[in-house]
Amino acid sequence: MKKISVAEEFQHIDAFWSPRQVGELNGQLVKFVRLKGQFEWHKHTDEDEMFWVMEGRLTIRLRDGDIVLGPNEFFIIPRGVEHMPVCEDECRVMLFEPAATKQYGD
Amino acid sequence: MKKISVAEEFQHIDAFWSPRQVGELNGQLVKFVRLKGQFEWHKHTDEDEMFWVMEGRLTIRLRDGDIVLGPNEFFIIPRGVEHMPVCEDECRVMLFEPAATKQYGD
Repeated sequence: MKKISVAEEFQHIDAFWSPRQVGELNGQLVKFVRLKGQFEWHKHTDEDEMFWVMEGRLTIRLRDGDIVLGPNEFFIIPRGVEHMPVCEDECRVMLFEPAATKQYGD
Repeated sequence: MKKISVAEEFQHIDAFWSPRQVGELNGQLVKFVRLKGQFEWHKHTDEDEMFWVMEGRLTIRLRDGDIVLGPNEFFIIPRGVEHMPVCEDECRVMLFEPAATKQYGD
């Protein structure tokens, strides 16, 4: 059992779009990820997913509009909802999702 | 569906030790809470619990030592582990735990 520091964990993350698992509880994973550019449209049929922005600015495109997140803001994407994360500049994010979640969706 | 802002949510929290639910995903609740002083020793038999410090400094007493958390540090208390949160000055925390979790433990 040890505490986790955001600053320390991000020192181990070199690549973008490559989540690092930093915790697990109740079958859910806590992951840190560096984002830059845009991902592809996808959805998770059976899993809700939380994006918590720690640094930078993240746009989550949804089919019916965009959600723009700044530091210390989060958004929960309900299961089944198509989304595409986009950020022009680097953005640092905490993801919270079930262990079964696939990065590119179903 | 809307984004959640830490700053905005805390404006609605007047009392200490009174968690405010700010999100739900996959049967887990996201809660914000203001802490000051000390809680009682307790444990959650079937639930892991995450404490994420946003502001201030939080000590989590465990039977075999203390964990001290500053801003942007978190700790996951495994199910069944006795703990007591303590902070001399105000501390603002995100809790992540199953919907079934009771504040005072089992």
